[in-house]
Amino acid sequence: MDYMNGPGRNHLFVPGPVNIPDQVIRAMSRQNEDYRSPAIPALTKTLLEDVKKIFKTTTGTPFLFPTTGTGAWESALTNTLSPGDRIVSFSLGQFSLLWIDQQQRLGFSVDVVESDWGYGADLGVLESKLRSDSQHTIKAICIVHNETATGVTNDLHAVRKLLDAYRHPALLLVDGVSSICALDFRMDEWGVDVALTGSQKALSLPTGLGIVCASPKALEAAKTAKSVRVFFDWKDYLKFYKMGTYWPYTPSIQLLYGLRAGLDLLFEEGLDNVIKRHTRLGTATRLAVAAWGLKNCTAKEENFSDTVTAVVVPPYIDSSEIVKHAWKRYNLSLGLGLNKVAGKVFRIGHLGHLNELQLLGCLSGVEMVLKDIGYPVKLGSGVAAAAAYLSNSTPLIPSRI
Amino acid sequence: MDYMNGPGRNHLFVPGPVNIPDQVIRAMSRQNEDYRSPAIPALTKTLLEDVKKIFKTTTGTPFLFPTTGTGAWESALTNTLSPGDRIVSFSLGQFSLLWIDQQQRLGFSVDVVESDWGYGADLGVLESKLRSDSQHTIKAICIVHNETATGVTNDLHAVRKLLDAYRHPALLLVDGVSSICALDFRMDEWGVDVALTGSQKALSLPTGLGIVCASPKALEAAKTAKSVRVFFDWKDYLKFYKMGTYWPYTPSIQLLYGLRAGLDLLFEEGLDNVIKRHTRLGTATRLAVAAWGLKNCTAKEENFSDTVTAVVVPPYIDSSEIVKHAWKRYNLSLGLGLNKVAGKVFRIGHLGHLNELQLLGCLSGVEMVLKDIGYPVKLGSGVAAAAAYLSNSTPLIPSRI
Amino acid sequence: MDYMNGPGRNHLFVPGPVNIPDQVIRAMSRQNEDYRSPAIPALTKTLLEDVKKIFKTTTGTPFLFPTTGTGAWESALTNTLSPGDRIVSFSLGQFSLLWIDQQQRLGFSVDVVESDWGYGADLGVLESKLRSDSQHTIKAICIVHNETATGVTNDLHAVRKLLDAYRHPALLLVDGVSSICALDFRMDEWGVDVALTGSQKALSLPTGLGIVCASPKALEAAKTAKSVRVFFDWKDYLKFYKMGTYWPYTPSIQLLYGLRAGLDLLFEEGLDNVIKRHTRLGTATRLAVAAWGLKNCTAKEENFSDTVTAVVVPPYIDSSEIVKHAWKRYNLSLGLGLNKVAGKVFRIGHLGHLNELQLLGCLSGVEMVLKDIGYPVKLGSGVAAAAAYLSNSTPLIPSRI
Amino acid sequence: MDYMNGPGRNHLFVPGPVNIPDQVIRAMSRQNEDYRSPAIPALTKTLLEDVKKIFKTTTGTPFLFPTTGTGAWESALTNTLSPGDRIVSFSLGQFSLLWIDQQQRLGFSVDVVESDWGYGADLGVLESKLRSDSQHTIKAICIVHNETATGVTNDLHAVRKLLDAYRHPALLLVDGVSSICALDFRMDEWGVDVALTGSQKALSLPTGLGIVCASPKALEAAKTAKSVRVFFDWKDYLKFYKMGTYWPYTPSIQLLYGLRAGLDLLFEEGLDNVIKRHTRLGTATRLAVAAWGLKNCTAKEENFSDTVTAVVVPPYIDSSEIVKHAWKRYNLSLGLGLNKVAGKVFRIGHLGHLNELQLLGCLSGVEMVLKDIGYPVKLGSGVAAAAAYLSNSTPLIPSRI
Repeated sequence: MDYMNGPGRNHLFVPGPVNIPDQVIRAMSRQNEDYRSPAIPALTKTLLEDVKKIFKTTTGTPFLFPTTGTGAWESALTNTLSPGDRIVSFSLGQFSLLWIDQQQRLGFSVDVVESDWGYGADLGVLESKLRSDSQHTIKAICIVHNETATGVTNDLHAVRKLLDAYRHPALLLVDGVSSICALDFRMDEWGVDVALTGSQKALSLPTGLGIVCASPKALEAAKTAKSVRVFFDWKDYLKFYKMGTYWPYTPSIQLLYGLRAGLDLLFEEGLDNVIKRHTRLGTATRLAVAAWGLKNCTAKEENFSDTVTAVVVPPYIDSSEIVKHAWKRYNLSLGLGLNKVAGKVFRIGHLGHLNELQLLGCLSGVEMVLKDIGYPVKLGSGVAAAAAYLSNSTPLIPSRI
Repeated sequence: MDYMNGPGRNHLFVPGPVNIPDQVIRAMSRQNEDYRSPAIPALTKTLLEDVKKIFKTTTGTPFLFPTTGTGAWESALTNTLSPGDRIVSFSLGQFSLLWIDQQQRLGFSVDVVESDWGYGADLGVLESKLRSDSQHTIKAICIVHNETATGVTNDLHAVRKLLDAYRHPALLLVDGVSSICALDFRMDEWGVDVALTGSQKALSLPTGLGIVCASPKALEAAKTAKSVRVFFDWKDYLKFYKMGTYWPYTPSIQLLYGLRAGLDLLFEEGLDNVIKRHTRLGTATRLAVAAWGLKNCTAKEENFSDTVTAVVVPPYIDSSEIVKHAWKRYNLSLGLGLNKVAGKVFRIGHLGHLNELQLLGCLSGVEMVLKDIGYPVKLGSGVAAAAAYLSNSTPLIPSRI
Repeated sequence: MDYMNGPGRNHLFVPGPVNIPDQVIRAMSRQNEDYRSPAIPALTKTLLEDVKKIFKTTTGTPFLFPTTGTGAWESALTNTLSPGDRIVSFSLGQFSLLWIDQQQRLGFSVDVVESDWGYGADLGVLESKLRSDSQHTIKAICIVHNETATGVTNDLHAVRKLLDAYRHPALLLVDGVSSICALDFRMDEWGVDVALTGSQKALSLPTGLGIVCASPKALEAAKTAKSVRVFFDWKDYLKFYKMGTYWPYTPSIQLLYGLRAGLDLLFEEGLDNVIKRHTRLGTATRLAVAAWGLKNCTAKEENFSDTVTAVVVPPYIDSSEIVKHAWKRYNLSLGLGLNKVAGKVFRIGHLGHLNELQLLGCLSGVEMVLKDIGYPVKLGSGVAAAAAYLSNSTPLIPSRI
Repeated sequence: MDYMNGPGRNHLFVPGPVNIPDQVIRAMSRQNEDYRSPAIPALTKTLLEDVKKIFKTTTGTPFLFPTTGTGAWESALTNTLSPGDRIVSFSLGQFSLLWIDQQQRLGFSVDVVESDWGYGADLGVLESKLRSDSQHTIKAICIVHNETATGVTNDLHAVRKLLDAYRHPALLLVDGVSSICALDFRMDEWGVDVALTGSQKALSLPTGLGIVCASPKALEAAKTAKSVRVFFDWKDYLKFYKMGTYWPYTPSIQLLYGLRAGLDLLFEEGLDNVIKRHTRLGTATRLAVAAWGLKNCTAKEENFSDTVTAVVVPPYIDSSEIVKHAWKRYNLSLGLGLNKVAGKVFRIGHLGHLNELQLLGCLSGVEMVLKDIGYPVKLGSGVAAAAAYLSNSTPLIPSRI
């Protein structure tokens, strides 16, 4: 029997992979093609041009690696740094941890700045490190924009301002996996040197594209970076860009067409409207959590994430039971608590191709799960709080006005 | 700009066409084939055998017409009756009206039994007609099992008992368009002579199959019925059934594969579980309506429909504004009030491939729409009432236990 | 085991259903929608406007019935004629025969003009009938433009000229099922009153749309035509056209989107280029047949069909063995000989979404089948003859120049 | 205008990406899922078990990397070797060259054994190197099973026999990108230590899976290999295999379902039948090339490739014009000559989901292109030669007997 069979739709609220628009599924339902014909380069050209818009960059150079976010991380690091290089990296949850693990295994000297889980990157520590680094031994700052495990959004602009204040030349490398296309992100304005995301996150595609964007300064650094790399090497891509054939090795044709369809939808809605929609859905979720009398894992309001909410459960409840039960009874997919917060939080992903009524369906499901599992929730309370906010803030759908 | 583009999914809650399972969409995403090869007859054979199960018949003969419900009506009538034949037909809403219009245009002498909209078929009148018809001038009783315009379910078993009580030989022709595969329907047990449905209703397929099932008595009647018919003639089908090629003219290959996938899902869930699910969703919807302080268009509890609820709005509200607004702001598709109840009711379809959280998403959307449109609803009230019931009645998904 | 599984693609060369473009399959791979929202009427409006172009009419009114070609026939007849009306109808193959059968069962007085199978409509007989019909008892002329069973194309313009010569007011009803969108067809110029086709033929869609186009004169006739009709009644459509909602009953949403995609492709190639392509593929096929030393079932060159070629096999071969063997060994679907020519001809359909190399693959397959079955064919001979012609006549693909 | 639009199908005969079965496209046309639910691990488990069969191994451990063949190469090398390790690598065409380039950039000491393009790996040189390497300084032998640029298949069994003869412990790393699932390949029997392929080759899927299979000896080597690796590290996978969750980072859900469908088709046909089909198609292609009077780029019969044929054109013809013209006029995609043979050869890929009539369509197209471009080919000659062979060797389709 197929696990996925069940009455009605699966309600997908993990913080990635996310719901794919039908238009994208359709665009990808296609045969292979010869990627050396004129068709694929012509398509790729438009994609590279348009993908810059989601990074809000005009000077950056994007790469569409056939990989995942983990590969995109590796590409960002190995193209800009040399083994032994000192980097400052913020640890604040499972995904920043995994990136730090990668940084260490790739041979960098990682200066880890710890935060308690639920807290943002400790920029005070960064400042002191920058202040004392007149020798510029720090080659890069690595930071996740949005820590998916705890629902913490960091202030990238503040990092840039610190670097500028100390005229520090360190590269700024940003994991935008659960932020780009959903949260306010400004590569050029904030002086981000490498930003990256994965196709299965806010872009709402299947997994398979690791999208990396490099600033001119990062491209310059790549010329001397000594980290070993071949598959993830920007150099090969740049060579093929110049030739106009774009691909040093075979791309996924289907994902390219999917990306085209996804970007078209994104631009039709308007990137800023997309970001506002995420603010709306994030706010509504937090209002529901408060109405349930539960705590947000994110300690401070300034770090509230509009793409994922980690909800802390009372000590007498195992949050993984919530996730299991939601899936088994209501066809609702929630995110598990990971590592330090395993059993303690469950996560509601509210990013990507999603609207108000989908979220309210999810919230009503969470309420029922909480009740089933023994938490004294008032059914309807979270939905009511969220709906009160949404009914005041949801705009008309532009194509239907 | 494409009207259908909007953030997130369309929430489809009209009482047909309904949500299609992804498995069915996949199964239908295919090339044409030669329908005279052995493949299509082999497939058709399994379909005809399995389709009987949804009618709960072992003695009936099904026909899969490439048409809609309207065509299925025509097939039921023209194959069993002759021009001028007297039939008793119940008028209780827009769809029974349309069927009566068809009956009249096809030249039958239609004895219309009127009910106020919101009320069920008046079986008292039927009884008096049967009692006085010792000559058996009534050739057929035509009744919709579930009137989609008002959300009224009729008691077919009671009709059969009346016919039996008066030993009346009239054929019993049933429109099961919005009932079969969702409500309790028993062709053999209730002595239904022709039953019919459309693929886009509870079967959760695209429009395009008018499924008609004939009892042995109906097949016998077809031999002498003088109504003119060619496209809808059972005789041609029966001839090709006998030859084992099944199709007198080209079928939709895609819909046949879709039907196969749809039936497989249905039987995996279990037809009786499907019916229970509809009872659950129907009950939950009615609890929400009551919590909102609104009236069900269906007057009596015995006629409550588990596939569609027609909600009466206060006189100061135009229900078509509700439908328009739901679509424009929340990507929610609700059913309009039709004909006599235009402007007075809106309809929530809760049939087909649908689960609890989808319904709760819809109900939360209706609440917001009601508030937006000026009705003093307490946000969350309907969802809470529905969820309280659902959290006590929803079973675990069998494939995940 | 699934009959359709086999290494590589199925080579579909029956004269319908035909190969569907991937773009159309993609466009149709979608959810249901509320057909009463503004989206479907807006789409329908463009379809009705554009569908006129494939009929080459500006004055005609098209109807998109959710039915097949057989249903479209019925719609053409019942909307324009009354029971007992005298019609002249040409019998020249299985499909004209089936139409005549329908005409008789619908109660018309059918004046059948017979031709031997393989010959075109006998216009000499028509002329004598028209000449002697000064009372205008003939209400309609019914003719298939292209008889799919024998590969015979009739001269519609000549029919029109005869009617005009005798100033005869009879309606001209044309079955364009295997011609429209593939052969030269001019509704307005040739004074056709009703023309019809099915979606699974040259339009290259799945089965499910019976497309009927009525001249103003035909619409006028519909006002007094007494044939019983409801599902196929134009009147209901016209009423909904006027209201701007377009559909008296539920359409197949998927087929509407498919038709949109199909028409877009058609117009991108250019209807006249499409017709030229069919001339090219038809000519190439006939050259191959001649090279094999086999006879075309079509007796006269003037009737050669560019959409289907019926190939006569020697008496010692059963053509149905050819069809069976092609399917079993080479995954090649050919058309059977029907009725009078069963066992005597097999048919190669060369219509719809098809190009030169697909046809040459088919022809090479037919050669191997002929050899396997015991006919002394020279392998490569037919392909060589076809290729010699095609390499001189195939244009560059416009999008790639 | 969309380059891919054109009448009829694209004829895809590049040696990858290849034609995808419709069943696979359907299986992949689906939503994202939570890959941490029980569904994806359950699916993955069957895939890992079944994928071993295509390598003909029972002792190997497979990895399904979300990457391409280039990434799979990198995974094979970095998991088993340390920087500075001496490896023997055969250079015989563009793809072996690219792999050697990667080996060098990854920091290995590459002992390159050159062959002229068109010739197989020089095992004589290998033997002398092994003979003189009593110190076992050679850590690995790297060889492409099938060089896609020249259509040269190497004798892997012979390599194993040499290693055994000299009791040499070097690892045997094999690029099976254009061989596995199409040519005879036996991981266990031939003592291959790492074998790899890409999903878009003979497996007939979209690009996106780099499938790597490691022998127990390779897994053992991985424990001490010092090459830097994170994304491509087997260790992380093995850890998650042990936990039963299988994925250290997000997989492409769609490709997993596609792989399931592809393997099901493969096993239904039977792997040995698939290999025989490739032999048949390869042989037929070579017979056509000979009939055209053209030379195979592959010098010796023992190296003839059954997945790709590189055809040498006369000096007065630029082979890239052939490729361009085939695409522009006949919608036929052929492979370019690469690097040393650019302009000198064009390539016909005959691997993956492909049957006899598709190939004959391609060959007829090549004939027309050759004629168009000025080569004096006798039209039909190649098709005739191929068909003569195929009509004697093609079996009936098992599902249709």
